[in-house]
Amino acid sequence: MAGLLVRDCDVLQFNNGQPEFLIHHNIRVEENRIEAIYPTGEWQSNPDIKVIDAGGMLAVPGMINTHAHVPMVLFRGVAEDVPLEEWFNDYIFPMESNLTPEDVYWGAMLGIAEMIEAGITCVADHYFFMDSVAEAIQKSGIRGDLAWAVFEHEGLEKLDETTAFITRWQGQANDRIRTWLGPHSPYLCGPEFLKTCAQKAVELDVGIHLHVSETKEQVALSRQKYGMTPIRLLEETGILERPTILAHCLFPEEEDLVLLRNHPAGIGHAPKTYMRAGLELGSLQPYLDNQIPIGLASDGAASNSTLDLYEQMRLMGLTQKIVEGDARSMPLDDILRIAFLGGANVCRHSELGNLKPGNLADIVLIRQDRASQIPRLNIAANLVYASSATDVDTVICDGQILLQGRQHLTLNKDQIKQEVEGRLEKLVTRVPGRKVAVYPT
Amino acid sequence: MAGLLVRDCDVLQFNNGQPEFLIHHNIRVEENRIEAIYPTGEWQSNPDIKVIDAGGMLAVPGMINTHAHVPMVLFRGVAEDVPLEEWFNDYIFPMESNLTPEDVYWGAMLGIAEMIEAGITCVADHYFFMDSVAEAIQKSGIRGDLAWAVFEHEGLEKLDETTAFITRWQGQANDRIRTWLGPHSPYLCGPEFLKTCAQKAVELDVGIHLHVSETKEQVALSRQKYGMTPIRLLEETGILERPTILAHCLFPEEEDLVLLRNHPAGIGHAPKTYMRAGLELGSLQPYLDNQIPIGLASDGAASNSTLDLYEQMRLMGLTQKIVEGDARSMPLDDILRIAFLGGANVCRHSELGNLKPGNLADIVLIRQDRASQIPRLNIAANLVYASSATDVDTVICDGQILLQGRQHLTLNKDQIKQEVEGRLEKLVTRVPGRKVAVYPT
Repeated sequence: MAGLLVRDCDVLQFNNGQPEFLIHHNIRVEENRIEAIYPTGEWQSNPDIKVIDAGGMLAVPGMINTHAHVPMVLFRGVAEDVPLEEWFNDYIFPMESNLTPEDVYWGAMLGIAEMIEAGITCVADHYFFMDSVAEAIQKSGIRGDLAWAVFEHEGLEKLDETTAFITRWQGQANDRIRTWLGPHSPYLCGPEFLKTCAQKAVELDVGIHLHVSETKEQVALSRQKYGMTPIRLLEETGILERPTILAHCLFPEEEDLVLLRNHPAGIGHAPKTYMRAGLELGSLQPYLDNQIPIGLASDGAASNSTLDLYEQMRLMGLTQKIVEGDARSMPLDDILRIAFLGGANVCRHSELGNLKPGNLADIVLIRQDRASQIPRLNIAANLVYASSATDVDTVICDGQILLQGRQHLTLNKDQIKQEVEGRLEKLVTRVPGRKVAVYPT
Repeated sequence: MAGLLVRDCDVLQFNNGQPEFLIHHNIRVEENRIEAIYPTGEWQSNPDIKVIDAGGMLAVPGMINTHAHVPMVLFRGVAEDVPLEEWFNDYIFPMESNLTPEDVYWGAMLGIAEMIEAGITCVADHYFFMDSVAEAIQKSGIRGDLAWAVFEHEGLEKLDETTAFITRWQGQANDRIRTWLGPHSPYLCGPEFLKTCAQKAVELDVGIHLHVSETKEQVALSRQKYGMTPIRLLEETGILERPTILAHCLFPEEEDLVLLRNHPAGIGHAPKTYMRAGLELGSLQPYLDNQIPIGLASDGAASNSTLDLYEQMRLMGLTQKIVEGDARSMPLDDILRIAFLGGANVCRHSELGNLKPGNLADIVLIRQDRASQIPRLNIAANLVYASSATDVDTVICDGQILLQGRQHLTLNKDQIKQEVEGRLEKLVTRVPGRKVAVYPT
């Protein structure tokens, strides 16, 4: 691979956690790493180096989606204005029983195309038939932290299938693919099953990605059933000994915060899902106060409509100010830290989340030419509150250009669209009595 | 002007208030009106007709921004993460004392460029030096419902200046410009001043656009000072006899709702401003229940960051579900009615807000080609929750094409950017003791 020069962009960079904007800089990429970042000078032509003219654009790290169900883009729009329990039990769990590995592959391809268009270069995905997702990740060029979701009622045999997936894919695609164990949640996996998962995770040396403490009702049900919070249950079953991605987790109690800050845990936050479902949103301030990592998450498009972390970033700022009743809550610097550094921390990627020499070359160029981005009195505010995922022009992952001038270089969107559309009728049919699980109430 | 044919788009149309999507249709425009909408057939070449190939795009009515301070785009980003009182008294009111008519002209041009890019074809603007805004409206090709904002402390002489503005501009630019009286609010204009405004509005046969009941504190202050709610004060001073645009107005009491439904009043709703300021959001359900018109509003970009009603539309749906704690609240049909028909009702434009033969030709074409808009299982959900103002491709207002392929045809954005940037240093300087008003607490 020849060298790559991203020329004359502005660069968002974190120094000691503090966001700064470098104006008129070049980014030099060698193989799959950032070699240097330095002020734009005269350009000496060099046929061995591919040049991207990024004048007027802002370079930011590729975003990391800390909790998703990517192939659910297949179900975008099927269950609108519907409460959570009905959403699960009457729509999604029945429809998911229709899925085949091939459906999941094309759903993953569509979702990955959407994420690339939105400047996402790494996704912690949690779904079924994950070999299909791994293949889509491999082909597309982005990164995946992949977990095969498993419910207790599927049994230990199914759990073994998901560990075989880990063995097959860990470190594949030039280490773009990493794997996690994916027990669904403490409300659909009991203590013994969780203990087994924790042991398997030790044997395989992987982390665990699961849903927890999504609503106050779930916390109350756990106390009633097990006499403890869901987070305490994770600690007692050994889950928290492993690196964990805790999806949503908006209702930690005091004791939970102590457990979380003493374990390698991180939170995947997807406010749009909560808003669309009319669910109460909790405060993120306790996590900030306890230095527990938070990252942005898209969740699945059936609940969230989009896989757009720029929108989640903006909504996180807006909703946290409402939750706290204070305009000073969740200031711009915290938002940028969570959106970029936070995602890398949650997914334990020490070489991502910051555009620094030596780090992996996951770089996104954002256009700054819409009227809404003028004037540039405050670049951070423009990025968070006046830009959009649709301003993404160019996406580079692991040194490879995936999107340029908004055109895909690794994916054929027309083919993906056709494959997805041909499957819809079968997928949205609900067969009475058939569903993948039951959401408890 | 030759005829115009928008060919082979899908069309959002309201029939008896019910949103429907016509698939593969043509829209025929003659002069400034929609002549016909009919299924796409074979195209017979005709040199007298300009054709826009809109295949794969969705045609919607130009959006109507029911409450804005357009030139405040000049202050975008100057006061971030700041509570409301500080925002007014320490930042915005001092900076606004720096404004000249020429600053306001270039601010209006920038804001109008932003609105055109976002598919807005009509704006109810409420600001200072409104001749400058009228000139910008005239030149750009969009519509304006313009009110010169006035505070009681500026005196009756100032009020007369704003009525002279009305006389100069009412019905100008082929009736694209209409005018309103603009007393700021009942908290910065007392009962006698409001009475005089109401009388002037009768004499001039215009409506009145003002801020009211924005927070619970304002309602409490009014009760304390005048022994009645702000809405009751508007009724007692005669303001409500005129058509009124009531900006924000999120805290009506029972008796207020009775007054509002018996008067020609409408609400301008801008949830993003509330979220950014960490202010409590009220429910819109009482307005829906009482059939009081609601329209979307951008407010000013200093509080709101953008003049983007697609974002406000999405945020209205998301926040109302949170306010009510119910996913079923503010369903898609209500959202579309408010976003399109509602804006026209609030601004009293009976020939806008719906793409119907005979109506004025304000038409926006939205691209449907991002991965986030696939599949199309639910066109309304895709439009509200998975599309963005940046998907706007073409904007037609009063039969004239203002934007095509995202390129401006009436405005020079480079010149506007340069003019705005040259004024920033002066504009953001705060001179001690100088401010246009004081926000009361």
